[in-house]
Amino acid sequence: MGGSLALALKAAGYPSPITGVSRSAGTRAAALQARAVDGATADLAAVVSSASLVVLATPVRTILRQLPVVAAEAPVGTVITDLGSTKAEICSAMAELPARVHPVGGHPMCGKESSGFEAADASLFRGKPWAICPVAGVVAGAADRVRALAEAAGARVLVLEPAAHDRAVAAISHLPYAMASALASVASQSGGRAASALASSGFRDTSRVAASDPEMMLDVFLTNRGPLLEMLDGVAGELGALRAALAAGDEAELLRWMETARAARDMLQGAGGAPN
Amino acid sequence: MGGSLALALKAAGYPSPITGVSRSAGTRAAALQARAVDGATADLAAVVSSASLVVLATPVRTILRQLPVVAAEAPVGTVITDLGSTKAEICSAMAELPARVHPVGGHPMCGKESSGFEAADASLFRGKPWAICPVAGVVAGAADRVRALAEAAGARVLVLEPAAHDRAVAAISHLPYAMASALASVASQSGGRAASALASSGFRDTSRVAASDPEMMLDVFLTNRGPLLEMLDGVAGELGALRAALAAGDEAELLRWMETARAARDMLQGAGGAPN
Repeated sequence: MGGSLALALKAAGYPSPITGVSRSAGTRAAALQARAVDGATADLAAVVSSASLVVLATPVRTILRQLPVVAAEAPVGTVITDLGSTKAEICSAMAELPARVHPVGGHPMCGKESSGFEAADASLFRGKPWAICPVAGVVAGAADRVRALAEAAGARVLVLEPAAHDRAVAAISHLPYAMASALASVASQSGGRAASALASSGFRDTSRVAASDPEMMLDVFLTNRGPLLEMLDGVAGELGALRAALAAGDEAELLRWMETARAARDMLQGAGGAPN
Repeated sequence: MGGSLALALKAAGYPSPITGVSRSAGTRAAALQARAVDGATADLAAVVSSASLVVLATPVRTILRQLPVVAAEAPVGTVITDLGSTKAEICSAMAELPARVHPVGGHPMCGKESSGFEAADASLFRGKPWAICPVAGVVAGAADRVRALAEAAGARVLVLEPAAHDRAVAAISHLPYAMASALASVASQSGGRAASALASSGFRDTSRVAASDPEMMLDVFLTNRGPLLEMLDGVAGELGALRAALAAGDEAELLRWMETARAARDMLQGAGGAPN
């Protein structure tokens, strides 16, 4: 996602030079060749010492480890933001940083299952929501710089409290991942030999996010446990009700269950959500 | 789906005249105007009396009611097929029809959530799997005629036993619908006000099939209870294991669970499945 952001900013004529940081020499070479970045290095601390805006585009728990390193090396007044999938733990850690740096939580809603610079896409953020979580006590101008960055990449900014963000993304991103994954496991165990041959767009779409990077999702789950545990219990209740109605052949209850779900989906997709 | 089939056959230059049957005057007029059909009527029994091939494109339990009516009115040698989503009950009913008609179970894997002739699409079947379930004791030429019809519409035919078909579609179609629906209900109850604003392609795709027609899905569920109940139990087990690992903060088990699911999804999508 860091590579996509650099490409998007260059495509939009973003005025500041961009230095990419990656441990992978292949990623650094590819980013330079694509002119996504003006420079590339493996040394985060060194490049941060001359940065005015730092974007951390790593998994959540790596961001938590990087924040104090970046804050220690960055010049006075540097804005530090991130692209991490959960915000409560990151914004708590940001609030503990020394006052000489200006942290702002961020999360663009545009993940894809593929990763690495070869999957980078300058249009990844276009029209997508980008959540910004201001950190208490930080100058308002810091959030304004992150907003300008997000808008330069084509995203539409929503300002949210970290807890509200994490509950919302548990519902519309982390729970879908859990459901897609459970579906994939059960379908492969139980569908028989014909399942793969018959799989069409419905299975492809419903299971797509199960292809997400497990290392990234592990961090997401471990830093969003409360909302996720609650929603997994909600799903167990919904599927239990469906199972009971199906076992009993209760047509009225099955129809009610299905109609409730369809209305819920219409509601979530209709009001500001992505198009159908 | 009947409208889409008529459009696809006309686009492919299918040689026989096609008569559409619908209770809706609006649907009949629209199909005639689009030249999807050569004639249109509300009277199934009357049109069947001069048909050589009858395609039942109604929900499963309507097909079960229509089969004896069609068999009673059809000329000797008429081939009767269907587009129903489950095959075991339909093929059992087909096996009971008088020997003067030639029934063949069929199921194109290309549903969409929208219905009615206004959603009809001549390219709906192109490249999609179309399951054919021959009925014991019926002349082989009957399945050949259905295969020719499916291939004229652009589909690729798979011949399956009804039980294998129903198990496979439980895994790759009916279970995904149950999961998408449970997800939509829980996300709308638990996600808070920001959920709709942040919903992006992941939620859209994972929940898409929750928009399916409940009346159609009710018939599907009631005629595929055995495999579905077993797979709902499988999902409860998978999500229960995830919940336990998450509650315990068991990183190794979470990672194993996620990697197993990703491998299962790769396997199902890789071998003959739809492209990613």
